[in-house]
Amino acid sequence: SMEGGVGISSYSRNSSNQGSAFLLIAPALRAAIAAHDFADHTAAPIRIADLGCAVGSNTITAVAFVIKAVRDKFKSSGLREPELQALFSDLVSNDFNTLFQHLEGADFFVAGVPGSFYHRLFPSSSIHFSMCNVALQWLSKASVPAAVADRRSSSWNAGRITAGGSAPEVARAFASQAHEDLCRYLACRAEETVPGGLVTFFVSIRSSSDPAEQTGGEDCSLGWMVTCLEQAWNDLVLEGLIDEETRDSFNIPAYHRTLDEIAKAVSESG
Amino acid sequence: SMEGGVGISSYSRNSSNQGSAFLLIAPALRAAIAAHDFADHTAAPIRIADLGCAVGSNTITAVAFVIKAVRDKFKSSGLREPELQALFSDLVSNDFNTLFQHLEGADFFVAGVPGSFYHRLFPSSSIHFSMCNVALQWLSKASVPAAVADRRSSSWNAGRITAGGSAPEVARAFASQAHEDLCRYLACRAEETVPGGLVTFFVSIRSSSDPAEQTGGEDCSLGWMVTCLEQAWNDLVLEGLIDEETRDSFNIPAYHRTLDEIAKAVSESG
Repeated sequence: SMEGGVGISSYSRNSSNQGSAFLLIAPALRAAIAAHDFADHTAAPIRIADLGCAVGSNTITAVAFVIKAVRDKFKSSGLREPELQALFSDLVSNDFNTLFQHLEGADFFVAGVPGSFYHRLFPSSSIHFSMCNVALQWLSKASVPAAVADRRSSSWNAGRITAGGSAPEVARAFASQAHEDLCRYLACRAEETVPGGLVTFFVSIRSSSDPAEQTGGEDCSLGWMVTCLEQAWNDLVLEGLIDEETRDSFNIPAYHRTLDEIAKAVSESG
Repeated sequence: SMEGGVGISSYSRNSSNQGSAFLLIAPALRAAIAAHDFADHTAAPIRIADLGCAVGSNTITAVAFVIKAVRDKFKSSGLREPELQALFSDLVSNDFNTLFQHLEGADFFVAGVPGSFYHRLFPSSSIHFSMCNVALQWLSKASVPAAVADRRSSSWNAGRITAGGSAPEVARAFASQAHEDLCRYLACRAEETVPGGLVTFFVSIRSSSDPAEQTGGEDCSLGWMVTCLEQAWNDLVLEGLIDEETRDSFNIPAYHRTLDEIAKAVSESG
């Protein structure tokens, strides 16, 4: 879970990567909103959802950016500015209390919605625009694919903590879970989004077709973190502080898809 | 602010009064829902708001009761059960994290909305049913009417911490603030409620027309609490630990209206 405050291990000191990611995302978001036809949405309030919102300055920055882009779009279309409601969603373990403190004084309506984005979060046809920024790499299972967590399975992930560098069966199990998850994500959004609404998501992708090639080099913070953690677990085994089975039962439920894998899930979801 | 846990000073040990209040409220709520015509509301999800929801078992009990009553009403009307969304609202200082933990597994959509119910909380015409249970006795000001908190004013509330037992000017200032607040509450709900929607609120009322007669006798926990607190403040002055001005600057921003005062605000709000 994320640590609050501003100390060396706090989320606010360690989310600059997520913050830089938004600088890359922002132009694409603005372009998607500018190209979108909001003419059908002038009667109702416009509801904007940030899925996997986390908590901190990045959260507010992204939504405030989108709100402004939507307002600009209405203005440039000669439409009267609608009421706007931002819905911030993340797992129930997210710190919504802190998020709500950051939101005081917002000039749009706000709400917090606890739950996993792999399930339905909102009533049918109620969201005009949903975004998910750098969060869909997290898989739906609290742990990882069942086979990977099963000691007797050939997919037991010995010596590794992600699909990266793992045995082919393990990597395939991660890939399969990631595909199912993305399909479920898209099915839920399809039900929640108003006809003609907008759905965006941004994730890091990998270039290799091999699902065991998860790391993205020196500039990939997840790859770097994974390497450090694997070394730390191995050290604990070598020092006799934990056994191999304990080490091997730990997996980070994350997966970087290829563009093809994403396209396949989108295409299967219609 | 409210204290968590189950200790002697915790909210959960000290909200039995609020819990018993709901036993009194429940039949009236059920009757209002049973008498309401939901036939116009079958296209959209039904949105139910609990304003001043606090946190704890009372919160969930009240909303679960309403959800069930609405479902029963749809069934008995031969209407297909709609999607339901419960919106839990309270001040930003409320513990939404704990509330959301209690809501895991709910079979309706949920959201938390931070803010004061004396301001707009939701988009226009988006709420089908709002309730406010035993919370409208709290006034909108963090402290109390400006005149009451002004040392130089004739409404400076010397020796008292509510309108109860205070000087006529003080009691009138509280009454005036309470009237403005209720009018503002009703104006906000009028904008937020769908045409044909339902608005309920339950508060303790007082029987005396004199606003300085705030306590409700032995069975009124606020009256009992106020008496204890006033004695405690006076003891601190007598022991020289605080001066009179410090004591007199403390006021509880609560007010019990008469039925006539409520009717006047409702009538002025159309």
